[in-house]
Amino acid sequence: MNIKTFITRYVDPDFKGDELPFPIQTFEFAKEDIITDFGEVETHAYFLTEGITQISLEKNGTERVLDFFFPGSFFSSYTSLLKQEASDVQVMALTNCKVEAIKGVDLANAYQHSLLANKVGRIATEYNYMRRVGREKDLLSKTADERYQDIFKKHPEIINQLPVYKIASYLGIHPESLSRIRKKVIS
Amino acid sequence: MNIKTFITRYVDPDFKGDELPFPIQTFEFAKEDIITDFGEVETHAYFLTEGITQISLEKNGTERVLDFFFPGSFFSSYTSLLKQEASDVQVMALTNCKVEAIKGVDLANAYQHSLLANKVGRIATEYNYMRRVGREKDLLSKTADERYQDIFKKHPEIINQLPVYKIASYLGIHPESLSRIRKKVIS
Repeated sequence: MNIKTFITRYVDPDFKGDELPFPIQTFEFAKEDIITDFGEVETHAYFLTEGITQISLEKNGTERVLDFFFPGSFFSSYTSLLKQEASDVQVMALTNCKVEAIKGVDLANAYQHSLLANKVGRIATEYNYMRRVGREKDLLSKTADERYQDIFKKHPEIINQLPVYKIASYLGIHPESLSRIRKKVIS
Repeated sequence: MNIKTFITRYVDPDFKGDELPFPIQTFEFAKEDIITDFGEVETHAYFLTEGITQISLEKNGTERVLDFFFPGSFFSSYTSLLKQEASDVQVMALTNCKVEAIKGVDLANAYQHSLLANKVGRIATEYNYMRRVGREKDLLSKTADERYQDIFKKHPEIINQLPVYKIASYLGIHPESLSRIRKKVIS
């Protein structure tokens, strides 16, 4: 999926695909490339067309994974992009990735006058809002077993492509606990 | 602040205030009124003009406060409103409250064609997204002491108006721990 497909599917079924309200560029990132680092001001909104990315926080030298992104999602250090402040998170390619990118300044311009740009921004933000709140609710109401099985059902590819410690960090548990859960799920 | 002031301040400084893109109603809720209950489908987006509301989750019979809302904020069981599914959270008035309310169906209609409605929806969702993500980052990176002091600085009124167990639930700590923190802060 690319941004045009996203618009036709989730924003406006009548969208013909010939008049995006903002210019887009395509970039490729290699596995472990840092897309936006701690302390940088985010310059783009990205749409992932291939690969997996993550957003992480650092606490006492330890990485905490806040979110994984899969193809078909918008991602960025969003608070940094919106506030034009230094990022307190890091955005990284976990596999080789292809993205479409909208410059923050082009997005802000399009937001001034374009109905379509505002619909895209609203719907993408609603979607990311629901994902984040859903994760917060899951952390408060589900066990690590249940949360692992959710992610396993939704994104089985994650299990083969990402190291255990990343998934454990995302689930908020120790890698050893995740290994026990995985053995139980497989058996 | 009401929705018109919100628009002039955060969405469009040229907004004259005479042409909202959706009808609004005003409601009052009494302290402890349930605005949207578990299992209901959310029917409105609310804008708080007076009072404090909360959104909470229930786990094993225990309430977990996910969020407090103060005047000047949009609130609702937002995932339920967007997906038109049964709410897994409860929205409650913690004090006597006054709100402006937009019916979900009116909002959806306005989103079809109105640039202003989409700007309002995008910016309100961006704002709530940043608050929720900020809270998640705080939970992962700050101590309960630091988080209490943040909320104390930002919303000193909360301390006088809400019972300790509510604030403790929001901070994710036991009421006894909060009492210790409060004594330290006051002394």
